[in-house]
Amino acid sequence: MNVLLYDTTLRDGAQAEGISFSLEDKLKIATALDKLGVHYIEGGWPGSNPKDGLFFQEARRLRFHQATLVPFASTVRKGTSPHRDPSLLALLRAKTRAVCIFGKTWDFHVKHALGVTPEENLRMIRESVRFLKGKRREVIYDAEHFFDGFQDNREYAIATLRVALEAGADWLTLCDTNGGMLTDDLASMVQAVARLYPQARLGIHTHNDSGCAVANTLVAVRAGCTLVQGTINGYGERCGNANLCSIIPGLQLKLGIPCLPPDRLQALTEVSRFISELANVVPDDHQPYVGFSAFAHKGGVHVSGMSRHPRTYEHMAPSQVGNQRRILISELSGKSSVLMKAKELHLDFAKDTQATQRIIQLVKRKEHEGYQYEGAEASFALLVQKALGRHRPFFELEGFRVAVQTDKRSGVMVSEASVKVSVDGRVEHTVAEGDGPVNALDNALRKALEKFYPVLSEVSLSDFKVRVINAAEGTAAKVRVLIESRDAKDEWSTLGVSTNVIEASWQALVDAIEYKLLKQTDAGARLRGHRLSRS
Amino acid sequence: MNVLLYDTTLRDGAQAEGISFSLEDKLKIATALDKLGVHYIEGGWPGSNPKDGLFFQEARRLRFHQATLVPFASTVRKGTSPHRDPSLLALLRAKTRAVCIFGKTWDFHVKHALGVTPEENLRMIRESVRFLKGKRREVIYDAEHFFDGFQDNREYAIATLRVALEAGADWLTLCDTNGGMLTDDLASMVQAVARLYPQARLGIHTHNDSGCAVANTLVAVRAGCTLVQGTINGYGERCGNANLCSIIPGLQLKLGIPCLPPDRLQALTEVSRFISELANVVPDDHQPYVGFSAFAHKGGVHVSGMSRHPRTYEHMAPSQVGNQRRILISELSGKSSVLMKAKELHLDFAKDTQATQRIIQLVKRKEHEGYQYEGAEASFALLVQKALGRHRPFFELEGFRVAVQTDKRSGVMVSEASVKVSVDGRVEHTVAEGDGPVNALDNALRKALEKFYPVLSEVSLSDFKVRVINAAEGTAAKVRVLIESRDAKDEWSTLGVSTNVIEASWQALVDAIEYKLLKQTDAGARLRGHRLSRS
Repeated sequence: MNVLLYDTTLRDGAQAEGISFSLEDKLKIATALDKLGVHYIEGGWPGSNPKDGLFFQEARRLRFHQATLVPFASTVRKGTSPHRDPSLLALLRAKTRAVCIFGKTWDFHVKHALGVTPEENLRMIRESVRFLKGKRREVIYDAEHFFDGFQDNREYAIATLRVALEAGADWLTLCDTNGGMLTDDLASMVQAVARLYPQARLGIHTHNDSGCAVANTLVAVRAGCTLVQGTINGYGERCGNANLCSIIPGLQLKLGIPCLPPDRLQALTEVSRFISELANVVPDDHQPYVGFSAFAHKGGVHVSGMSRHPRTYEHMAPSQVGNQRRILISELSGKSSVLMKAKELHLDFAKDTQATQRIIQLVKRKEHEGYQYEGAEASFALLVQKALGRHRPFFELEGFRVAVQTDKRSGVMVSEASVKVSVDGRVEHTVAEGDGPVNALDNALRKALEKFYPVLSEVSLSDFKVRVINAAEGTAAKVRVLIESRDAKDEWSTLGVSTNVIEASWQALVDAIEYKLLKQTDAGARLRGHRLSRS
Repeated sequence: MNVLLYDTTLRDGAQAEGISFSLEDKLKIATALDKLGVHYIEGGWPGSNPKDGLFFQEARRLRFHQATLVPFASTVRKGTSPHRDPSLLALLRAKTRAVCIFGKTWDFHVKHALGVTPEENLRMIRESVRFLKGKRREVIYDAEHFFDGFQDNREYAIATLRVALEAGADWLTLCDTNGGMLTDDLASMVQAVARLYPQARLGIHTHNDSGCAVANTLVAVRAGCTLVQGTINGYGERCGNANLCSIIPGLQLKLGIPCLPPDRLQALTEVSRFISELANVVPDDHQPYVGFSAFAHKGGVHVSGMSRHPRTYEHMAPSQVGNQRRILISELSGKSSVLMKAKELHLDFAKDTQATQRIIQLVKRKEHEGYQYEGAEASFALLVQKALGRHRPFFELEGFRVAVQTDKRSGVMVSEASVKVSVDGRVEHTVAEGDGPVNALDNALRKALEKFYPVLSEVSLSDFKVRVINAAEGTAAKVRVLIESRDAKDEWSTLGVSTNVIEASWQALVDAIEYKLLKQTDAGARLRGHRLSRS
């Protein structure tokens, strides 16, 4: 069995709330999808907006390895002849080998959304497909609302498919446009169509409104669909489209249907994160297969099982999709977690030595105080270095001071920080302002240290999180601050804990800087920065 | 057919990376789950950590409408007799009507994770169930890795179920612990068990590692399971557990199986968001049914279809789960939500008056700046009072100042705040220290105001949360501070937004105090404080 992948991230994916791709983004994404090995890339609806039209023009200079670019449109307008329809003409102007059009399957929609007779809708489908076939295009026909239509008026739904098929459509894609279908219902409807038209090549297009889009796609393939439509990370209108990042591993690793070229599956995690970066959407850490936490183990029983055999709590090897196992250090973790974590970070220390005991004691004490190393692997690495007596402080803190006050005249809030540090006896005393107290502190600390360590100018802070640990005591509660930093190559997380948000931030800032400096040393080179990275 | 809901947000959900519930959080979540109408609430693993043991002690003073609290543990340890097993004894000490234990089903696990013989594992299951039945508990037996075990060694997997059943287990829960199962495979395995043990009551527990947890749960119910385990928002280790917020509507609205008490389904969206707030996890906007974008329409064709008939692009009515339709890039969405919210809070103002327009404009502007009144109804009530011109300021701020610095000698961090306020022209200038800058500010502000308003001594701050809104800019990012306050009768939430965490905290502190003072007035008496409460 052979399944072809049809990506619609650039068209249906762009309908997600909050997503808007620039032309340049679209070209980059198409290139990445081709490299991944997708067969069809739906690039947009050239008749609906100028950006999509331009994309197909620009995309002609991309050299694809194998992907076919597909423009999208609706069937011809009511009462119009195809060769006068601006939307179909725009399809042809895209100058692609294949095109996709969608038509109405559900009589309810024909009446209420289109406002035409059932016969006119059949004409629109027939003539549109025939017209495009006459222009020697491969025609993918998307049967919009197929499953709702089939449930409501089976006869009419089938009539729309028959018309498209007889007019020469190369593919009939069955769409769960509203995303409300349940898995076994959908499977039996696909089977019914496959029995009716054994000669037809069927596609499947699902949405996630009932939380079943991935399962629905996989059962549809088992029921006979050989074209799979979906988007990277499941982006799409409302609850999103079927997520190709879950479907592709499902097809390859679970159903044994290879769909990507050899060795490309390992690129899946990278492609997922790259596209979330361009979409400017925070990646879903818990996303199956490719999420940052998809292979993160925290519960004590799980971690101890994992230390014996990975198969105990992993349904597959993370490396198959280019992801990584992560052992979380939390209040639940015992000795085995600490040891596995250290191994993962290439912190070489032998089991059951005095040093190991020291690390475990230190971690336990810190955790009791509220430190949580599960999201702060750089702070954990520094802690291990310290426990092993390998840590050389890069600077000494003489003191700092932060003041926030309302400006007497304007009422505007002003934040100022001063920092006094020394490196090898040379004292630096700096002051800086910022948007808030932590930003001011960050600015003052860098100002002081960049003099001694110019490499720090490469570091930028990419995220800042505050969480209250023991909430019950209100503003006197302990807070945990988590800071993410990055340079050109890596991304790393550090933390601080205190009843004082400024002090907790300070600890995390200092760790972030020390970790960067540690990375530059020989000892740090072994740390394998990329293992701490999210990207 | 009758399906019972078994929520494990407090146990399996807490194994998610980044989630750590305080004892207070756990009590609040249990109360919310009971109100929603869940049948079983798994509260934790009392034998594994002291916090979970304490939870069951404290939970005894909660008055549940219908939920049964369940503690969790593994079967007895190898070579141990149940009445000497600390974990089983801790189960009993929880003093609940029902208990849940998990045992090994997969011979691979028995050998590699437990390191016992297959027979010893059967003994451990048998004696544990028998022991707990002897103590007159309802016993839910979770067959860990059931599906992997069934595929690998069917005979042994079935033997573990038989032993549990014969020892008196009330439920056999079939678990896809590694979350790798596909929907049709899982369905046929559930059917096989149901055929084998028609008298057994079966449960289903799935994880989302292949993206199929919701679909797998729904087909398992159709195949004969009548107990559904899952978590709110799908929280859980790795890719999470089966999401009850998708499963419950699937059962009720699609399969026609009522599982919540009448009219409770409409509370689902609220419960989902409340628990994400306590977990301090950014809600997934695209989550089926309850997500902020779940019924958000953006594509031109979709919006135009929707304007003709909602059924064109919605698989169900959003109000059925307490969610709302949103037409993106439109003025309508804001108005109806503002009006709905105001009605809920008993803020009496007529529809379509000038004042309403003013409120809507103000809310829109505030939301654009990052304010979100979802979890801060006291701030919303104040905002409405202000927009209606009904707000009388209780004090004037002349200025404040916060300083945090390291003490030169001890190195200890010192936080000091000074506040200058006036009430009816009388100026009060106070200074106070605190555990951190916000605590210092809180102390100084109360010191100044209690002189004029002694009633403020009743108020205490019960929670303090900080969330970064636009994370991309690091420490210069905007933060949203949420403060919860309480007096003897009520609990209320207020918020502040700024790039400066101190300023945002100040806004929330001021709102908290103004709301308390407003409550004391005639106008405030109508506000129905309890409706602003989270619990």
